[in-house]
Amino acid sequence: MTTIDKLKKLEHNNESKLCIGLDTSFDKLPDFLQNDLSNILTFNKRIIDNTYDLVSSYKINFAFYEQYGATGYDYLEQTIAYIPEDIPIIADAKRGDIGNTSKAYAFSIFESLNCDAITVNPYMGYDSISPFLEYDDKLTFLLCLTSNKGSEDFEKLILSNGNSLFQEVIQKGQSWNINNNLAYVVGATHHRDLEILREIDKHSYFLIPGIGAQGGDLELVVKANNGSPFIINASRSIIYAGGNEKKYYENARKEAILLKNKINSF
Amino acid sequence: MTTIDKLKKLEHNNESKLCIGLDTSFDKLPDFLQNDLSNILTFNKRIIDNTYDLVSSYKINFAFYEQYGATGYDYLEQTIAYIPEDIPIIADAKRGDIGNTSKAYAFSIFESLNCDAITVNPYMGYDSISPFLEYDDKLTFLLCLTSNKGSEDFEKLILSNGNSLFQEVIQKGQSWNINNNLAYVVGATHHRDLEILREIDKHSYFLIPGIGAQGGDLELVVKANNGSPFIINASRSIIYAGGNEKKYYENARKEAILLKNKINSF
Repeated sequence: MTTIDKLKKLEHNNESKLCIGLDTSFDKLPDFLQNDLSNILTFNKRIIDNTYDLVSSYKINFAFYEQYGATGYDYLEQTIAYIPEDIPIIADAKRGDIGNTSKAYAFSIFESLNCDAITVNPYMGYDSISPFLEYDDKLTFLLCLTSNKGSEDFEKLILSNGNSLFQEVIQKGQSWNINNNLAYVVGATHHRDLEILREIDKHSYFLIPGIGAQGGDLELVVKANNGSPFIINASRSIIYAGGNEKKYYENARKEAILLKNKINSF
Repeated sequence: MTTIDKLKKLEHNNESKLCIGLDTSFDKLPDFLQNDLSNILTFNKRIIDNTYDLVSSYKINFAFYEQYGATGYDYLEQTIAYIPEDIPIIADAKRGDIGNTSKAYAFSIFESLNCDAITVNPYMGYDSISPFLEYDDKLTFLLCLTSNKGSEDFEKLILSNGNSLFQEVIQKGQSWNINNNLAYVVGATHHRDLEILREIDKHSYFLIPGIGAQGGDLELVVKANNGSPFIINASRSIIYAGGNEKKYYENARKEAILLKNKINSF
């Protein structure tokens, strides 16, 4: 089954377009779990146990695990292994390098870790992306327009052909998408640009972060997306919703239900 | 001591501007080492033992280690630990993410792994880079113009202000370089563009890959660089120079001496 099929199946079964980001940092765990680094894994398992029926996917940002070296990488692997088989896992790794190196990254994410999707950076161009696209059952999310302030520095610059750089990314991406396995990251903080992007590409998945901790407006975003396939990601606002409470995962579940339903309401 | 000081000291002591890339893949090891994954580490140690007096730095591309999951990450850590203290280590990880995530990556590279420098991707703009720049004793190499064919797709596009995107990267980079710890990756396959970049920035380090396996012309590159600080990287052409020979590291040493001297001759 392709990642897109897995996504569509789970969206249907869980009635959800929500992706929870397991961006777990040791220093943000509830106080009573801050006695042992391996509680990162305990925390993730509890969050997964209490949200697996609410999501269309999980996203794992590698930075938070690489902080702790090989030990953190081991927790990353164990978290991935713990997620039920039918739930797509997006490796939020933002990789990209020259061809033979991207090939090694693609092997790492899609074969060694057996993730279903990855985020990649477009800067280095086609041959840095194609090794990921060769996995035709997987899904590759190209950074297009990110949710942060720095998106103004390069992504929003206007080219001599009149396109902004992020438009050029999606247009080139369309010409690269021979296996129908290319998708895009479009931040929730740019709902007007999202409309423009949906005029260019109605069919590809958009992974939309920036709701929650980053403050994007969910209603405007869902409307701008205009019925095309999408995934709303929230990380910190869900997984840390329980603060220092003993049953922190219950608040995470409540927050996930709220957001899932809110997405569906628009 | 800052990374720049370490680099200058070793350039002087070893009379070298050569950086060897320890981009070690198990399937490229000599046949007689392909019986055990841990020979990646054996191989790296032999290469380091036989080249440490010839380099200004080592570069480690993370993709080749991440291929093997937590085990590979452990070899990465052990390789870093084996490199003598006085030799700068460049983490060729091409990271970059929103601020709180880049902060975790910076911690991973500069504190957890204790590397001296990193390569980062500019696409997401200033707030994705600044967490690295806050380490004012370390060095951050911003991808500017990469050595691969895909550099034409976005990096070489012309903006409405007349700059190419890669020129815009170095110009913005100059305004971000408050701590004098920003440097650039400029591929050896673009010696004319290197000249243009050196007109914009005479003082920053350029890390120049693309000699060797990728075919950049060393003489043209060194001349275009026009006396400014630089590091020439070669990876596969040196570390695999010994093929299947029992003493593969002797050929790696010979190749490193040849390249080091060739760089110095121009």
